[in-house]
Amino acid sequence: MKAWVKSRPAPGAELLTVPDPVPAPDELLLKVRRVAICGTDLHIYNWDRWAQEKIRPPIVFGHEFVGEIVGMGSQVKGRRLGDLVAVETHVACGHCRLCRRNLGHVCENMSIVGIDRPGAYAELVTIPAVNAWPVPRGMPLEQAAALEPLGNAVHCVLAGEIAGSSVAVTGCGPIGLFSICVARACGAGPILATDVNEYRLELARACGADRTCLVTREDWVGAARDLTDGEGVDVVCEMSGQPTVIVEALRALRNAGRLSLLGLSSQDLSFDFSKLLIFKGITMQGILGRRMFETWHQMTSLLESGRLDISKAITHVMPLEGLEEAMRTLADQKAGKIVLVPWGEASSAFGAQRVVEREPAGTRA
Amino acid sequence: MKAWVKSRPAPGAELLTVPDPVPAPDELLLKVRRVAICGTDLHIYNWDRWAQEKIRPPIVFGHEFVGEIVGMGSQVKGRRLGDLVAVETHVACGHCRLCRRNLGHVCENMSIVGIDRPGAYAELVTIPAVNAWPVPRGMPLEQAAALEPLGNAVHCVLAGEIAGSSVAVTGCGPIGLFSICVARACGAGPILATDVNEYRLELARACGADRTCLVTREDWVGAARDLTDGEGVDVVCEMSGQPTVIVEALRALRNAGRLSLLGLSSQDLSFDFSKLLIFKGITMQGILGRRMFETWHQMTSLLESGRLDISKAITHVMPLEGLEEAMRTLADQKAGKIVLVPWGEASSAFGAQRVVEREPAGTRA
Amino acid sequence: MKAWVKSRPAPGAELLTVPDPVPAPDELLLKVRRVAICGTDLHIYNWDRWAQEKIRPPIVFGHEFVGEIVGMGSQVKGRRLGDLVAVETHVACGHCRLCRRNLGHVCENMSIVGIDRPGAYAELVTIPAVNAWPVPRGMPLEQAAALEPLGNAVHCVLAGEIAGSSVAVTGCGPIGLFSICVARACGAGPILATDVNEYRLELARACGADRTCLVTREDWVGAARDLTDGEGVDVVCEMSGQPTVIVEALRALRNAGRLSLLGLSSQDLSFDFSKLLIFKGITMQGILGRRMFETWHQMTSLLESGRLDISKAITHVMPLEGLEEAMRTLADQKAGKIVLVPWGEASSAFGAQRVVEREPAGTRA
Amino acid sequence: MKAWVKSRPAPGAELLTVPDPVPAPDELLLKVRRVAICGTDLHIYNWDRWAQEKIRPPIVFGHEFVGEIVGMGSQVKGRRLGDLVAVETHVACGHCRLCRRNLGHVCENMSIVGIDRPGAYAELVTIPAVNAWPVPRGMPLEQAAALEPLGNAVHCVLAGEIAGSSVAVTGCGPIGLFSICVARACGAGPILATDVNEYRLELARACGADRTCLVTREDWVGAARDLTDGEGVDVVCEMSGQPTVIVEALRALRNAGRLSLLGLSSQDLSFDFSKLLIFKGITMQGILGRRMFETWHQMTSLLESGRLDISKAITHVMPLEGLEEAMRTLADQKAGKIVLVPWGEASSAFGAQRVVEREPAGTRA
Repeated sequence: MKAWVKSRPAPGAELLTVPDPVPAPDELLLKVRRVAICGTDLHIYNWDRWAQEKIRPPIVFGHEFVGEIVGMGSQVKGRRLGDLVAVETHVACGHCRLCRRNLGHVCENMSIVGIDRPGAYAELVTIPAVNAWPVPRGMPLEQAAALEPLGNAVHCVLAGEIAGSSVAVTGCGPIGLFSICVARACGAGPILATDVNEYRLELARACGADRTCLVTREDWVGAARDLTDGEGVDVVCEMSGQPTVIVEALRALRNAGRLSLLGLSSQDLSFDFSKLLIFKGITMQGILGRRMFETWHQMTSLLESGRLDISKAITHVMPLEGLEEAMRTLADQKAGKIVLVPWGEASSAFGAQRVVEREPAGTRA
Repeated sequence: MKAWVKSRPAPGAELLTVPDPVPAPDELLLKVRRVAICGTDLHIYNWDRWAQEKIRPPIVFGHEFVGEIVGMGSQVKGRRLGDLVAVETHVACGHCRLCRRNLGHVCENMSIVGIDRPGAYAELVTIPAVNAWPVPRGMPLEQAAALEPLGNAVHCVLAGEIAGSSVAVTGCGPIGLFSICVARACGAGPILATDVNEYRLELARACGADRTCLVTREDWVGAARDLTDGEGVDVVCEMSGQPTVIVEALRALRNAGRLSLLGLSSQDLSFDFSKLLIFKGITMQGILGRRMFETWHQMTSLLESGRLDISKAITHVMPLEGLEEAMRTLADQKAGKIVLVPWGEASSAFGAQRVVEREPAGTRA
Repeated sequence: MKAWVKSRPAPGAELLTVPDPVPAPDELLLKVRRVAICGTDLHIYNWDRWAQEKIRPPIVFGHEFVGEIVGMGSQVKGRRLGDLVAVETHVACGHCRLCRRNLGHVCENMSIVGIDRPGAYAELVTIPAVNAWPVPRGMPLEQAAALEPLGNAVHCVLAGEIAGSSVAVTGCGPIGLFSICVARACGAGPILATDVNEYRLELARACGADRTCLVTREDWVGAARDLTDGEGVDVVCEMSGQPTVIVEALRALRNAGRLSLLGLSSQDLSFDFSKLLIFKGITMQGILGRRMFETWHQMTSLLESGRLDISKAITHVMPLEGLEEAMRTLADQKAGKIVLVPWGEASSAFGAQRVVEREPAGTRA
Repeated sequence: MKAWVKSRPAPGAELLTVPDPVPAPDELLLKVRRVAICGTDLHIYNWDRWAQEKIRPPIVFGHEFVGEIVGMGSQVKGRRLGDLVAVETHVACGHCRLCRRNLGHVCENMSIVGIDRPGAYAELVTIPAVNAWPVPRGMPLEQAAALEPLGNAVHCVLAGEIAGSSVAVTGCGPIGLFSICVARACGAGPILATDVNEYRLELARACGADRTCLVTREDWVGAARDLTDGEGVDVVCEMSGQPTVIVEALRALRNAGRLSLLGLSSQDLSFDFSKLLIFKGITMQGILGRRMFETWHQMTSLLESGRLDISKAITHVMPLEGLEEAMRTLADQKAGKIVLVPWGEASSAFGAQRVVEREPAGTRA
């Protein structure tokens, strides 16, 4: 099969022909139908320090995808050939004490598709059957491919009370944009979105933010207080990973507020914990992956019922063949979520919907 | 002042001139700006068995209202003359152990405005200052008058998980309609609404129900299962008070679902608790009043942020002078929430907005 | 192997030699080390109406047990021969939507060991590997055999707030006794226990009840109010399954209290839901089985740390050979939990600890 | 009346005669029966930097106390002369949005008895009636005086799941010791306690710690892992305020564990939040004061039912007259909680119970 392989410990990736994967007894063989680009994939592509520590080439990468079941191992139950499934990319061991307490999202023996085992920038991929989540009938393939990062947003937003809560989302990459969509669908408001990039803030407004702050020009902590009669916001969903933003988030929160941290960094966080955390009675949560599989259930329901609309956050549909161009587009921060169409799919996908670069609402001439 | 008084132990009410009320040291004196009709008021008006047991004439009744602060006692802090306030009509004692545990909504020493103390079908009314909730700037007075029953709906819908949950609302009187609005605003779906009255089901659809069942013609339990791939709904908000409907609700729920009961009845409930409650792992909750004052905060936020729209559930604005006609309209089940305009208000209210009988969407010629 | 078989649709059971069971690829083969008697087993033995509807003879019954792993299927991971395991007897399908939401305890495709598949009144038994829970080092085998019913109690007691709560346990069979032990270990108090049998109330006091009521002589609702300055108890754990007791429980609860129902009945429950559930703001929960596997984790931790002591609730250790005598002892209501010792075990068990009928504290001469 | 007054901006305090306080309409006048020393009082006495910023002399200090109602304002309801009350020393405004959401423990307008208004190292003190909590009959006065700091411990320990959880308490001053008592009473285990002082670790063992670590000699993170089969503890209650200990706590926790921070510091906390908080899925909570008044209810119930025993953590009962000696004893870290007996009380208190320096169990010759 064709696959994009991180073949060497250096920037870039190679399009190669590799052997078809074969499913183990408890695994599914999937034909990749759409695959999205995660920020992590760009780290791997660019071969930065994080990638150098974590990735052992050669490996097929890519892990946000929807596939069709085209084969399965002998022990798999309850699955049918031809079904479309999205994929929980965190492969929990299922046996450790955390898994047995339904905390598989932080399993200590976790392996990750596209990082620790072969990924989905390919025609075919194998995954444990338990990691497959049925895609609701009628869901566009582009959205199905984005369920994995959408799940990060759902996990983050719904990690505490949200209906009737004021929310700030700091950082408007794809998961930030999804968080705005989810918060809005679940009754949060007002919603403040921050970023350093005006293009992303336009997307944030299209996704439902009530107020945006370009933090290079505006004091977002002040804006958060203005939106809430000086009290501070109930919830911050932190997507930027910037320590300075996290400290600002603590200042922007009302007393007894919630700070849910998802954005990662290699830097330390340093802050006056007595004043900003204890005296304010704040709860600060680390958010990793998706609850298995409550989060998947919640997001599927939100999408199926039409309450949640993530279409504005998916800005590009491009051919997987052109992975390098897609990586450049992402690197230029001129995109929300980018979804890629594999080889066999391309003609029909292009027939039904031309590969276009969608602009956020309000930016068209 | 003028006031509608339940003056005798018999059907009806009298429009009388009575002395102006005087606030105690911890009370506010309010000029009534709008007052809505509760089903309870119709019971009092009609002098049914419940009313005969609970009400001691003579008493001014009416308890869903918004007022302007025109006086206050010497001990009141943090209030200003001229402010608009909605009113929590359950007057909790504040001293008992339930109140001290923030369970004032079930205080055993509770008295209720318009039932145990003078109500708001009048020009003026006094209430404890602690029971007044500031009305957000810009909120239409009709909606402000309906915050009390809206709070019942918010309490019921948000008494457990709701985002991404399938919900049935059984009974589409005003609180049922409000519950549909709230569930939709908070990410619930699909939403199924049931009633015996097609007019109310039209209102339910206008408020956001995805599916309605006229229970005189259709099996709603089957409809609930159809909507959820046979599994049953996650949540039922029960507003009808009918024991048969409650048993159906237990059948309509998925295992481990939630049944929140708000609708009252004088009849007993009889059911196979082993099969329908224990083997299904159901949680059944009694919902009374509003959490003080978390519910008020939640509903104010939902309305202010624009996530929640209750306008479709308020169908009539009529003069308080014509209380008798309004009672007939309600008794005919040809109304959602009816809001009344007191005497001094009438001309301006009529100037700004003619007193109209609003029809639900889709029923106009 | 030897096994007690419900061989015919009639009262009693036969001790037969049957073929050794063989584990499927995802199953364990266990040598039974101790097996306890559940009330359900007595129903099967006596062949009452419930048993006639549910059981399809011939079947080996018995489902509360601890076993040693003596064989395993080819797909089993993370288990070792020789390990001792207790068994979750509810076999959830693992694939349905409830299972995927971590609600396997109410899986609609559930089968039960000893009811729907062969049980543990035998030398050997097979179970799905996922249903095996490691027994902590040093735990007495009698207690390990009782983990399954103890889990019912832990699930019930910990289904809401418990530390600092007043609790009534209605019905002092083994699960009621275990509930008293658990409530006491987790900071509940005062604890009131009720039964119709003075022997069981003695056991209740030995397990930690602060106050007991023989309901044939005493008004336990009054006692519950006396214990709580007239307010009513915070929590009732209902084990009797009697509809009259459930109604009394609603009266005995304080407003906004919790009623957790575990005891089953073939009778309907009939009550004034408006007055007793809604006006009181009560939460009524159906409790089934054990949360998989949070409950198992909680109970293991409580036992290992020494906070929980269930030794007083296990009153008899008898030979499995003498099942018929054990059934008579249970039927006479002269026992807490009865644990049985299989054939190969007997001599060593009797060596280490004579088979004695333990009396509750305070009843010895 | 006699009172210890922080009369000047310098170390020390003066015993002066000052005017008797007079209660406002909503206040109580209390005769102080016992008053304990808080670490904060030592800061005020020593006049350290924190005190220089916060305290405006002259002021009577001392805020952990039990008093008898000897007078009350005209608006006070539901209180009787002669009743004993403990005091919530955080005076919340009652009007702000946080107070109205039952978050008075983090009210932004809070004033504190003994810091912002006159305290209890005196014969008499006034407090708002709402801040008085009835002392259960039969509770020793020494324990009643310690309810306020005990409430900190109860708030911290019960801020999440605790039954069946492994817990580390870092720092064994009085609130740490109380936390051990509470955790043990509520089913937590194993309990690990850490400190730099062997005397305090002896107290920790007497209070119920299963394992203690003198952190100057032992690696407590390793000990925490040893206690939990390498997994890490479920909960850390952090009392030391040391940033290095907080980072160790994050390492000592299992994934998805809870870190509840109560100990304060003037230093910043600096840590690798991606690795220690996000990848581990940790929840970090700031704990301030006591929930009003759920915490008070919980602790009263735990004490009344006999589940909670704090007697081992109260090591000294001394005369208030000798405040200076008591301050030296505390500064020497040779004490758990120190309780002081006011002037009028002394003879009877000494009669009933000599003023003794109690040694922890195991330290007597």
